[in-house]
Amino acid sequence: MIPVQTALDTILKEVAPLGLESVQLQNALGRTLGEDAISRWPNPMWNNSAMDGYAVRSNDTLGASEEAPVRLTVIYDLPAGHKPDRPVGQGEAVRIMTGAPMPEGADAVVMVEKTGPAPDNGVFIRSIVKHGEHVRLRGEDFQKGDVAVKKGAVIRPAETAMLAAIGSPFVFVYKRPRVAVVSTGDELVDINQTPPPGKITNSNGYTLAALVREAGAEPIQLGIARDNRASLLEKLKQAAEADCIVSSGGVSVGDFDFVKDVLKELGSRMIFWKVAMKPGKPLAFGVIGGKPAFGLPGNPVSSMVAFEQFVRPALLKMSGRLEIERTTLPARLEKDLKIKSGRVNFIRAKMTIDATGLCVTPLAGQGSALLTTMVSANAYIIVPKESEGLKKGDMVKVQPFDMTAFYK
Amino acid sequence: MIPVQTALDTILKEVAPLGLESVQLQNALGRTLGEDAISRWPNPMWNNSAMDGYAVRSNDTLGASEEAPVRLTVIYDLPAGHKPDRPVGQGEAVRIMTGAPMPEGADAVVMVEKTGPAPDNGVFIRSIVKHGEHVRLRGEDFQKGDVAVKKGAVIRPAETAMLAAIGSPFVFVYKRPRVAVVSTGDELVDINQTPPPGKITNSNGYTLAALVREAGAEPIQLGIARDNRASLLEKLKQAAEADCIVSSGGVSVGDFDFVKDVLKELGSRMIFWKVAMKPGKPLAFGVIGGKPAFGLPGNPVSSMVAFEQFVRPALLKMSGRLEIERTTLPARLEKDLKIKSGRVNFIRAKMTIDATGLCVTPLAGQGSALLTTMVSANAYIIVPKESEGLKKGDMVKVQPFDMTAFYK
Repeated sequence: MIPVQTALDTILKEVAPLGLESVQLQNALGRTLGEDAISRWPNPMWNNSAMDGYAVRSNDTLGASEEAPVRLTVIYDLPAGHKPDRPVGQGEAVRIMTGAPMPEGADAVVMVEKTGPAPDNGVFIRSIVKHGEHVRLRGEDFQKGDVAVKKGAVIRPAETAMLAAIGSPFVFVYKRPRVAVVSTGDELVDINQTPPPGKITNSNGYTLAALVREAGAEPIQLGIARDNRASLLEKLKQAAEADCIVSSGGVSVGDFDFVKDVLKELGSRMIFWKVAMKPGKPLAFGVIGGKPAFGLPGNPVSSMVAFEQFVRPALLKMSGRLEIERTTLPARLEKDLKIKSGRVNFIRAKMTIDATGLCVTPLAGQGSALLTTMVSANAYIIVPKESEGLKKGDMVKVQPFDMTAFYK
Repeated sequence: MIPVQTALDTILKEVAPLGLESVQLQNALGRTLGEDAISRWPNPMWNNSAMDGYAVRSNDTLGASEEAPVRLTVIYDLPAGHKPDRPVGQGEAVRIMTGAPMPEGADAVVMVEKTGPAPDNGVFIRSIVKHGEHVRLRGEDFQKGDVAVKKGAVIRPAETAMLAAIGSPFVFVYKRPRVAVVSTGDELVDINQTPPPGKITNSNGYTLAALVREAGAEPIQLGIARDNRASLLEKLKQAAEADCIVSSGGVSVGDFDFVKDVLKELGSRMIFWKVAMKPGKPLAFGVIGGKPAFGLPGNPVSSMVAFEQFVRPALLKMSGRLEIERTTLPARLEKDLKIKSGRVNFIRAKMTIDATGLCVTPLAGQGSALLTTMVSANAYIIVPKESEGLKKGDMVKVQPFDMTAFYK
């Protein structure tokens, strides 16, 4: 039985980022950028107007006010996307739209709200403007040659905006890990069957596939391996074609657990079998045909907890992500919590927010087969192995895992 | 100019959840459940063993200890997925695996670690067990007829587990809104072109599509509408085939903004044009051909802020979600913040966590055309319109928008 942190460190030492591939920008959301994205031009590309109004020489507005407007001659209109016809001379103005390039000669923009029509193609300027006012300067966002988005960045909408702004219809991103998901056990039937006596549905196959997908990787559901050598061997050979193997069940102590024997037959290198955590203790990790392989517990909740703590970080590292562990937050415990010490406890809990900050309530029913508690939870309370219990009001370490309910 | 909350309330009054569709469970992640999912059997379906060990009559273990083990006769092995051969009598035990049904007669399980081999098909029991120990009772997770997952729940891995456990290969979920994305402006070129003088790339089209996707909806990128009646009319007619229309640009005050006129021509009902916020003030909302239509500002940052505050909640409501506004959190301001009062300010910021809790630093460069600040940000500080500035150490309202960096 090895400590949780040792298990994680061991796993992360064995996995490395996959290679890169080119994808269209519109398909890059959530992917990890595989190289620095360098801007090929400055942004803005030219000095331009930040307002709808009149491009003027600021000196011409000296003394202008509501009571004593200054009249300028409008020499032309300049919509965004069009080029200035000619420079702005003394006493002249150009009617300009937001984003349009500043015409030569003009050094400021008077917003339209501070102007009014004047006879003979004129405009009344009702306010002084300073040099540079309402003008966006060439390169004020970024310069040509700047790193616009760094290698390792996750492509969110903001990075999409930036990559579009520097003209990147295609981007190099890390490949998504393809993850083979295998459930083991004679007791399993597929979810389209009513389980006959003694059987249960293969819920883990679907749950683990969902967890893989949530981690940004691609699940390959291989279905059920039976509790015999031939069946398990066949499934694991198929699974080793993927980038990572995740199985559930078959890693506890009974004779009916063939996983260890078959793993040896596949020439796999098994690295550990048990982790000092609850739930999730019977967790195996090794390497099969060069691919990281996780043998998760068969209990639904145990397999989810073990996935979150170990498989997810491994998949994020394979995906090129720089930050791979879930954030933990300090929160105030709303209820006493009894636990057995000796192992790190992951307690299903409901995190909420009140005026004082984050609060967390441990849920009743922590048995590792109880799915109802999992459906009500949005976070784990992580209780260190030395702890012998926690009191209402204690600050505890919480790991939210919910992309939708707590963090909408 | 209407208040932010009024604008949101107005929008939400105009949109309603779309209809339902049936999808395979493995494709349901992130979707909203369209009807209560009722369990068709109890879970567990039968009393079963929570451990690998020996199913016994608890009375037979009375007095058992390390020093004075009790010998029982093992009458058969019972793997998970198999049915018991015959009841357990006095002095008998069944070797049982986790998940296997409890044989009649037995009322407890001795875990294998508390046992040892005994001659003549026997087992030494080295510990007392209580009635019911290590036995999971039929229905202790949920009963037949229980609502296993409620209508309106977002399908996360936990809900996937539950839906699989009740045998739901298909689930009814709300349809995902199809969202037409149109950028308007003569200044725009597609991102595969180097912008000629006076032009810029159509970054908004890509950014808004990414925001749509992040909200769980389906973007349809219709490209660029030019600043003339015919072009805009054509694009908006196409757009009205979708469930929702999002355009950017063309909603400010100039003559070159044709959007309002074309909207009238399409028989649309425009509801408001301006919202008291910064950035994002020139925000139009209306209904075109029965479809909600958002006219977002052309500035990249303004359009992202406006999307987050108004379009996203509308899309979540259309998707059947019950909680549709992003969570806001109290956080400690790390730096003085000067602002102009009169409008709600959305300040791009970096939220972090230290030992005392959540902290937030406003970023330098709040201009609405500055994408670099957007790339560095993971949250907005929402500053009420009455505020005339905030001081370092103040508790402020923060709206994290980052699914990946802050909340990994």
